Amino acid sequence: MFNFNEDRFVKVIEDALSLRVDVEKTIDDLYDRGFENLFLIGVGGTYAHFLPMKYISETLSTMPVHVVQAAEFILQGNKHFSKDSLCVFCSRSGDTKEIVKAITFCNKAGATTLSFVCNSGTPVCELSKHHFVSFAEDDHLAECIYLEMYPVIFRLLKNRGEFVGYDKMFAQINSITPYLVKAKEQTEEMAKSLAKHHRDTDYHMVVGSGAVWGEAYDYAMCILEEMQWIKTKSIHAGEYFHGTIELTEEDTSIILLYGEDATRPLMDRVYNFAIKISKEVAVFDTRTVELPVDEKYRQYLSPLVIYTMLERFSCHLEKERNHPLTTRRFYRQLQY
Amino acid sequence: MFNFNEDRFVKVIEDALSLRVDVEKTIDDLYDRGFENLFLIGVGGTYAHFLPMKYISETLSTMPVHVVQAAEFILQGNKHFSKDSLCVFCSRSGDTKEIVKAITFCNKAGATTLSFVCNSGTPVCELSKHHFVSFAEDDHLAECIYLEMYPVIFRLLKNRGEFVGYDKMFAQINSITPYLVKAKEQTEEMAKSLAKHHRDTDYHMVVGSGAVWGEAYDYAMCILEEMQWIKTKSIHAGEYFHGTIELTEEDTSIILLYGEDATRPLMDRVYNFAIKISKEVAVFDTRTVELPVDEKYRQYLSPLVIYTMLERFSCHLEKERNHPLTTRRFYRQLQY
Repeated sequence: MFNFNEDRFVKVIEDALSLRVDVEKTIDDLYDRGFENLFLIGVGGTYAHFLPMKYISETLSTMPVHVVQAAEFILQGNKHFSKDSLCVFCSRSGDTKEIVKAITFCNKAGATTLSFVCNSGTPVCELSKHHFVSFAEDDHLAECIYLEMYPVIFRLLKNRGEFVGYDKMFAQINSITPYLVKAKEQTEEMAKSLAKHHRDTDYHMVVGSGAVWGEAYDYAMCILEEMQWIKTKSIHAGEYFHGTIELTEEDTSIILLYGEDATRPLMDRVYNFAIKISKEVAVFDTRTVELPVDEKYRQYLSPLVIYTMLERFSCHLEKERNHPLTTRRFYRQLQY
Repeated sequence: MFNFNEDRFVKVIEDALSLRVDVEKTIDDLYDRGFENLFLIGVGGTYAHFLPMKYISETLSTMPVHVVQAAEFILQGNKHFSKDSLCVFCSRSGDTKEIVKAITFCNKAGATTLSFVCNSGTPVCELSKHHFVSFAEDDHLAECIYLEMYPVIFRLLKNRGEFVGYDKMFAQINSITPYLVKAKEQTEEMAKSLAKHHRDTDYHMVVGSGAVWGEAYDYAMCILEEMQWIKTKSIHAGEYFHGTIELTEEDTSIILLYGEDATRPLMDRVYNFAIKISKEVAVFDTRTVELPVDEKYRQYLSPLVIYTMLERFSCHLEKERNHPLTTRRFYRQLQY
């Protein structure tokens, strides 16, 4: 595969998987001590990756879960938030400005803070009551975050008696690494030709729903916009028909991200309409990927798997467009 | 003002205001009977207009409020939803497919359904356990919806002992009509020249935060995309810095929608950065509008006021671009 370091990828996955036992201990302890509600406090990509956690929780549990944007949360306040809230954060760098501020805010309120970070010794580590470190860079970051967050969410649900398959599912997830490598391999050719085809395309719609909606939001904003400087609209499959549909033309690029939950019919509805108008409809579908888990658990892994697949597209876009994924003109380059 | 029928506008506002006493009776009755949580179930524009209701509630109350996308909600289910949920809907037409299905879904589950509709005798009226009719067309629809929804949210909070200013605020809101007309008048010249300037602009970023974020989402999707076929990115002010920022160039149109809540500093942060790079930054700010309510209540009215102001821009865009706001090539034109 082009520009893919399998050893590095495997290490990211295995390192994240190996954290599970420690995460479980912490979560069990926090559960036993009790908490009122769960706040998942993110910004940009981490906000996006938290959305599936809320989706999963709401399909299985009555646990109150709030996914909030860190900068807004600090200014706005939230009456549900209190010293009895369990607040979870992720930060790759460990010094994301908004996250550092939000952790400080939560600590001051006496709430419990728990963070996942890719770099030790950083402010997020130092400030958080509990933290776990597992290294990843942007290309495999979501896999790392999801493999850390699944034990948080599902362990809480298991402890609440709302998810009986916990041990079985995680035993299966433990062997996921080669399946993810294979997911990349089988996406490679399609991603390559799609990137070549879209070398000069200056606008993409990215459509998702259900557990994968956060990834549509993320891929549009954090990859295509931030890393390739291409305009996008991320649009929920259910919302496409209420505005964005009118932009659809023969040459409109529409990238559909299919997960495997109950909302797939919303994606089909967009697909079936879009192919009538546009010749530029592309599909990434996690259902094409073999996974080591039972059918009923696949839906929860979809956001992770779709990110794994999309990274191949990003890699080829970088090459075809001669635009490094790491180049920024503003982000962390200027003061703002 | 260009293409503005003041009598029609005044009638929309006054009709919606006049519903309040009846809405209060229904809400008091539902409150007394008790409910577990509030589901605001929308699609497209109505989803967008529900977002500020959640924002308001979360800044004042611990009442559990869920804003969900109707089509997704039906397929996904939600463990918080039950026969004890109070479910609120809005539909201008009264036959919005997703809303009709969602009301049916909620009725079947034994939940309480309450709808606001612009046309009597429609399926939404017939299906809902409770419904209120007040006429509006798209140009003044959000004013109608907000003036109907404020008594729902704030009455519930008042009954819960979480909003003491209820009577005072609504007595003040009762005289809002001429202030909204004046808001349009004072926006007219700016809207006209902005529309002229952007006659050929094919992409806008629309930025909002807090109580006004839903309106940024709405204006981008339901007006610029649906009614003018112009590409947009609606971006939360707190999220702009995590991707979309990289698209900012000297000629990038960035339309900032300022409300008056605690999140204004997020808007300032975008503004202060954007004007360094782009020459095409435009601001609509509700703070410039005189209102008959106490300072502390203004933040709640911001989403309504910003919609009132933006309608002037839409009107002039229609003229300058010679593109009627009512033309659709797909929405309700094709089967999908």
